[in-house]
Amino acid sequence: MSVALREDEITLALIKSLKEGKLTEFQEILDELQPYDMAIQYRHLPDKHRNKFLLYLSIRQLTELMQELPKIEQIDILQKLGVEKSSKVLDRMDNDDLALLLADLEPERIEELLSQINQDDSKFVQSTMTYPPETAGRLMNNRYVWIPRHYTIRDAIDKIRHFAEIAEYLNYLYIVDEDKKLLGVVSYKDLILGNLEDKIEEVMYKRVVKADVLMDQEDVAQIISRYDFVTLPIVEADNTLAGIITVDDVIDVVMQEANEDIEKLSASGKSIDFDTPAWTAAYRRLPWLILLLFIGLFSGSIISRFENTLQTVVALTFFMPLIAGMTGNTGTQSLSVVVRGLASQKLDFKQTIKLIIRELWVGIIIGVICSILILLIAYVWQGNLVLGIVVGGSLLMTLIIGTLAGTIIPLLLYRFNIDPAVASGPLITTINDILSLLIYFGLATLFISQLM
Amino acid sequence: MSVALREDEITLALIKSLKEGKLTEFQEILDELQPYDMAIQYRHLPDKHRNKFLLYLSIRQLTELMQELPKIEQIDILQKLGVEKSSKVLDRMDNDDLALLLADLEPERIEELLSQINQDDSKFVQSTMTYPPETAGRLMNNRYVWIPRHYTIRDAIDKIRHFAEIAEYLNYLYIVDEDKKLLGVVSYKDLILGNLEDKIEEVMYKRVVKADVLMDQEDVAQIISRYDFVTLPIVEADNTLAGIITVDDVIDVVMQEANEDIEKLSASGKSIDFDTPAWTAAYRRLPWLILLLFIGLFSGSIISRFENTLQTVVALTFFMPLIAGMTGNTGTQSLSVVVRGLASQKLDFKQTIKLIIRELWVGIIIGVICSILILLIAYVWQGNLVLGIVVGGSLLMTLIIGTLAGTIIPLLLYRFNIDPAVASGPLITTINDILSLLIYFGLATLFISQLM
Repeated sequence: MSVALREDEITLALIKSLKEGKLTEFQEILDELQPYDMAIQYRHLPDKHRNKFLLYLSIRQLTELMQELPKIEQIDILQKLGVEKSSKVLDRMDNDDLALLLADLEPERIEELLSQINQDDSKFVQSTMTYPPETAGRLMNNRYVWIPRHYTIRDAIDKIRHFAEIAEYLNYLYIVDEDKKLLGVVSYKDLILGNLEDKIEEVMYKRVVKADVLMDQEDVAQIISRYDFVTLPIVEADNTLAGIITVDDVIDVVMQEANEDIEKLSASGKSIDFDTPAWTAAYRRLPWLILLLFIGLFSGSIISRFENTLQTVVALTFFMPLIAGMTGNTGTQSLSVVVRGLASQKLDFKQTIKLIIRELWVGIIIGVICSILILLIAYVWQGNLVLGIVVGGSLLMTLIIGTLAGTIIPLLLYRFNIDPAVASGPLITTINDILSLLIYFGLATLFISQLM
Repeated sequence: MSVALREDEITLALIKSLKEGKLTEFQEILDELQPYDMAIQYRHLPDKHRNKFLLYLSIRQLTELMQELPKIEQIDILQKLGVEKSSKVLDRMDNDDLALLLADLEPERIEELLSQINQDDSKFVQSTMTYPPETAGRLMNNRYVWIPRHYTIRDAIDKIRHFAEIAEYLNYLYIVDEDKKLLGVVSYKDLILGNLEDKIEEVMYKRVVKADVLMDQEDVAQIISRYDFVTLPIVEADNTLAGIITVDDVIDVVMQEANEDIEKLSASGKSIDFDTPAWTAAYRRLPWLILLLFIGLFSGSIISRFENTLQTVVALTFFMPLIAGMTGNTGTQSLSVVVRGLASQKLDFKQTIKLIIRELWVGIIIGVICSILILLIAYVWQGNLVLGIVVGGSLLMTLIIGTLAGTIIPLLLYRFNIDPAVASGPLITTINDILSLLIYFGLATLFISQLM
């Protein structure tokens, strides 16, 4: 019935069924909604209807709803549900979502919530929370199907049928030994295509692609996207199967890492989105701006050392924004090429040298072209060939140096295991600003007698 | 056997088996490699062993290898294989990969390659290539399983078994009517949990989440990541099932779109990676730099209009980089918040106004704090309170205006369906540079008698 309805029509139908207390009609509408759509409906609903909405949902539906809502609403729902129902919901939630829900709560509240769910899940969630943030261990869940090595394909299919509801994806089964060490993997396709009496051990794939619990989440994302997997097994250092990471979480990681790179490259401050309050946003943006203020002062103090040169040839001031701006920009260009490249590709020493030489050539090419252009323009505009040569010559040098600085600094940081994107705002800008002003005014002071 | 071997040990073992002509040993090693690892081995192999390597591979393995290699090596392999084998490989390739391989070739070569594969696939690939770039139609493939509405679960499972090898993922089956119009979807889980004699029509899910062939790939990625799907059905305007898009392609899209945003925000030029030759990289970066050069000249011409003011109070020059730099930076911060926010969230009118007011407050807060700071510093450094007031007052105004410009301009572009990230380099920088210089020197000229 609801197939052809628009979102707002569904909302109206839901409210009607809630008002009239018609549970069957309500469930008929919900049956055709995806969890994400159900959550949208819940958020559209006026407050007064929400309690009844929750009352009408099954535990499965409540769990699905929870997993699509922001943390603050999740906690609100848990309170509305009461201990008994909320423990059932927590019990069914994916463990990675559960860990996320608990991450920022106070210890007593965590204990209280964990005491409501079954012991296995509670232990699992507690163990994932011991891993450092942004590692595989934090991201994994335990909704996978594992089987012992002596199973036949028939046994495996039986077990799958049994666990189909709790497993997040059924694409792979993991084979473990008595100590839960990971031995192999079979895909669901293999089971479908094999004979029911075949031993799993004979059809399983032994060279399992897996990741360590401590692996950085960005590297996990790279593995999953390279191999086109739907799930990836995560193991402890001793090869014990600890959990799986699923492809849907990887998409979130890829988005998050890209956003972090952009935040750092544009020095825009951590995690500001459309809902961040003004005070918080200002507070997060200020550190960079104040740093830049002092960098600007430092540049100013360099300029002040050339006060005499400037007083003699005021026209030098006209080209200051151009030279500083161009140098800063070419540095940022190189920086973003390096940062994004490193996000999807590792570099060995030979490749690093090759990249630096490539960027050196880029710097020379754009330096020569831009400086010839500005030499001509400066000459025509100010009618002073020496000024043209000073401006053009400075630009040539600063563009080459700026390009190299934007390349070498993030590469050095990367070698020393510091996130290269950190180099962005402050480091590259400072170095390029200071170098460009020193070169420009230095050259101008050298030619001061011809410039007048 | 090869489970415990490292990458280079595998390479050596492969070369040994190739040299000694031991096909069985060769296949034993390969059996334990993922396609991605096989491709790495192939690329590590010295040229002289590559032909034999290809000769030893089955058609299935050749196809898997092809799909992991860059286009230029794919074409090389096709030539090495000869018409008969290469047609079999092309026939088995995923259609989206095939379309990608063909995309940049000359028309005659496309026709030649397409003539080698079966008619259905050839037609499908040709049809996907008619859709605009970066749409769902371009990204979709036809490796899915569809069933008619009158099937039972048993029939469906039989059909899956038959098509298991060609389908990319088996997580969902799509139900279509006689005209191939999309009616519903069942997940593989539903089949496992259902009764074999149940009618598909009764268990299928009718409110199918789907996307139009012309939908932008970024929106497709949003849908798949919201709903945690493994595949998403793609339909024509008349609801005919045209293909599916798989989650692995979505990860690539998310990465690509994030890279595009970064390219635009840092004005770093289109698609430069570590392998781009220096000439190409310079050519792609130059347009932005030359544009910035003229923007710099324009700023210079504004400064030149205040030559007298500057000549009277040279100290004004010292604070120029600071004011222009801070204004540019706060603009870029706002810009990147807006661009990244729009990548994962749509805005209605009310939310837009709310965001602008939020950023206005951010501008006021950071403006007040930074300008008080600089007022004090300028006063202490130069011993001139009026200079402090001119610098601080200008900074207050330019920070507020810069923040608003960085917010409103991308939002306006977004309203007019222009990619907001385009605003980056040129627009925001120009406007903020020009405004900040006008305000700064304008204010200074007003106070010129007190400044001396």
